[in-house]
Amino acid sequence: MASRLLASAPDFETAFEAFLATKREVSEDVDQAVRAIIATVRHDGDAALIEYTKRFDRADLEQLGLCVSAEDIRSAYDYADADTVEALRFAHQRILSHHSRQMPKDDFYTDNLGVELGSRWSAVDAVGLYVPGGTASYPSSVLMNAVPAKVAGVKRLVMVVPSPEGFINPLVLIAADIAGVDEIYRVGGAQAVAALAYGTQTIAPVHKIVGPGNAYVAAAKRQVFGKVGIDMIAGPSEILVIADDKNDPDWIAADLLSQAEHDTAAQSILITDAPAFADAVAQAVERQLATLSREATARASWNEFGAIILVDDFEKALPLADRIAAEHVEIATDNADNLAAKLRHAGAIFIGRHTPEVIGDYVGGSNHVLPTARSARFSSGLSVLDFVKRSSVLKLGPEQLRALGPAAIALAKAEGLDAHARSVAVRLNL
Amino acid sequence: MASRLLASAPDFETAFEAFLATKREVSEDVDQAVRAIIATVRHDGDAALIEYTKRFDRADLEQLGLCVSAEDIRSAYDYADADTVEALRFAHQRILSHHSRQMPKDDFYTDNLGVELGSRWSAVDAVGLYVPGGTASYPSSVLMNAVPAKVAGVKRLVMVVPSPEGFINPLVLIAADIAGVDEIYRVGGAQAVAALAYGTQTIAPVHKIVGPGNAYVAAAKRQVFGKVGIDMIAGPSEILVIADDKNDPDWIAADLLSQAEHDTAAQSILITDAPAFADAVAQAVERQLATLSREATARASWNEFGAIILVDDFEKALPLADRIAAEHVEIATDNADNLAAKLRHAGAIFIGRHTPEVIGDYVGGSNHVLPTARSARFSSGLSVLDFVKRSSVLKLGPEQLRALGPAAIALAKAEGLDAHARSVAVRLNL
Repeated sequence: MASRLLASAPDFETAFEAFLATKREVSEDVDQAVRAIIATVRHDGDAALIEYTKRFDRADLEQLGLCVSAEDIRSAYDYADADTVEALRFAHQRILSHHSRQMPKDDFYTDNLGVELGSRWSAVDAVGLYVPGGTASYPSSVLMNAVPAKVAGVKRLVMVVPSPEGFINPLVLIAADIAGVDEIYRVGGAQAVAALAYGTQTIAPVHKIVGPGNAYVAAAKRQVFGKVGIDMIAGPSEILVIADDKNDPDWIAADLLSQAEHDTAAQSILITDAPAFADAVAQAVERQLATLSREATARASWNEFGAIILVDDFEKALPLADRIAAEHVEIATDNADNLAAKLRHAGAIFIGRHTPEVIGDYVGGSNHVLPTARSARFSSGLSVLDFVKRSSVLKLGPEQLRALGPAAIALAKAEGLDAHARSVAVRLNL
Repeated sequence: MASRLLASAPDFETAFEAFLATKREVSEDVDQAVRAIIATVRHDGDAALIEYTKRFDRADLEQLGLCVSAEDIRSAYDYADADTVEALRFAHQRILSHHSRQMPKDDFYTDNLGVELGSRWSAVDAVGLYVPGGTASYPSSVLMNAVPAKVAGVKRLVMVVPSPEGFINPLVLIAADIAGVDEIYRVGGAQAVAALAYGTQTIAPVHKIVGPGNAYVAAAKRQVFGKVGIDMIAGPSEILVIADDKNDPDWIAADLLSQAEHDTAAQSILITDAPAFADAVAQAVERQLATLSREATARASWNEFGAIILVDDFEKALPLADRIAAEHVEIATDNADNLAAKLRHAGAIFIGRHTPEVIGDYVGGSNHVLPTARSARFSSGLSVLDFVKRSSVLKLGPEQLRALGPAAIALAKAEGLDAHARSVAVRLNL
């Protein structure tokens, strides 16, 4: 059973603080092992990838080849259901259309002193995309990571994906094909991250690495950060559903379980103003749990981290929701737009009774790579901005230098930086 | 003497690769010490700050007070030169004006299926700004970090600055006052970062921490990352000057030295097409070095990491410049605009013979917190974007759910996620 909190209870603040502080993930200490793997890949290159893949993925890259070929991709379509491929194409179009609005614009202007200033955006040249193997090998995530990179103009998008026992999900290859991934390699784990960061004989290095992975992948990304850019370190998924009793309890229960089935460390939270509705949802969760193929995972998540919070009215839910700062927030109430507009901290907001969060996972168009573990307070979901960088541009003529120079000299002198002062003064004969 | 590389030499590629791979910074391993400091601050709060400040800064916070008062700030103005304060105000206005153009715009629209989509930006609620003490306590950096936060709409901007022997640079306090910093605490090092991330009795926690610091501060920022957001980890400064022989060698030498004087690990690089000009600049550097108050620092940087690269023509300089991906690039040639437009990887570009990089350090208006150590290949200088985050918004009605639902269900089933499929299907009576 999920925990219950009553916002009007005298001990609510203490209970809510404890709830917010709950650790859902034990971070495995794999730093030493990962350090050794990275050093070996830097030293031995492809040979290390072949060796680690034999050991960890039980796959023979000398036979399969490190690089996934065009023929491999063509044959993936033979194994895939045509309707699913069509759904991937549909999702791709919608994600592409949404992300195409995100490309930032250059800004060049001349100020009142005649100084020319500018901000110029350009794409990262080469990006690596990590895709997990096994049950977490989601084709939808390939689209969500690859599309913003391609919209940004990344020329070389390199995917790495482990092939346990030699197997790669054909839909993952198809999603990569649809999204325009340029190179695919059959390698995973810390060794794949090392190959992307430092390069091997076969894999040229990239400048940024994105995509989710296990503890080894996360540790490897942290260790190569600086040498290359990385995206955020993803934590387990969360949903907060704010719902009144005009909803069908079965609908809301299904939404809560759609996060719980991801991971035993996932978290599903319901905030409602109706105690009887809360009971009805809790009962519907129990009924639906029994029908899920991932019942054990979903049940563990719901029992350990699930929560139902009862509030007097939904205005009081907002400050709680902001403190939770959930990855996903569904608002299924009257005046949902109004509540949504006041919510400050959330990765993604789903408004109204007909917008289950799952639509955002696949075909809404917005990105499903979103900030977890309360990081929506300071970070955003993946977007085109993660694949571009900005150069600032400045241009002065002699007149502008005369106008700005004296203040620069004054500040340089105040900071004790002689050569700074001189580089301006020498041009002004000061 | 700086090293010399000749782009037309047969061994140039090897030499240039080795040059790019040069490590300029030995990263001190202070992780264990920092871990202990953070744990102690979390446990003992203010008492730990008082104790560490006594030990590391030789200052008594019980007497001075942890919080810098309004009276402290007023009296800082008594110690400051009026012209310098005026220069700070001038710089502040220009930085404010430039950064005000960076606020991203919300984007709400309805697509051809009637799906409502949106991206909504909001400020991070509370930000911590670390300011170093001692010689690296730069008032200009206070402006560069604080202004974009305030433009973004950060309500609570908290500055921490160590007070070695009880002393804080009055200009740092004045810069904070001008920029609208909300709270200032006399504490530095890993203990200050811990206080910002976890809070103490006196200092409420923040959601993001920015600003440069020593190895302890950098390690502490890495360790609290996730609990709070952080900015990039700043490395030593770099300048690349691309210049022809129509420049005064003294001007270019001063520009090279303006980076070298920052740090023995700073790097100054000249690319030119004129061997005699290269010699003249090298001689000017030697002459000017002798006159600098930071001569030892600048000389060490120039001798160990400085470089002069000779190219046949400036078009050939561009791919080299992109591989160097310098923090600052000055282009002092004919057709400088043209070359600048083709440069892909640089933190900031300074165009023409009258735009010394130092103008950008203080009064250009653009930010001087820029990507170092070749990270301009994948990251940008500090901006308003670092202090805002985006929530995506999605809203469907029944008709839109019917249009999108089947593809979402197909993908959920293909990914083996029953509850995902159900949360859509249950709403469509499927």
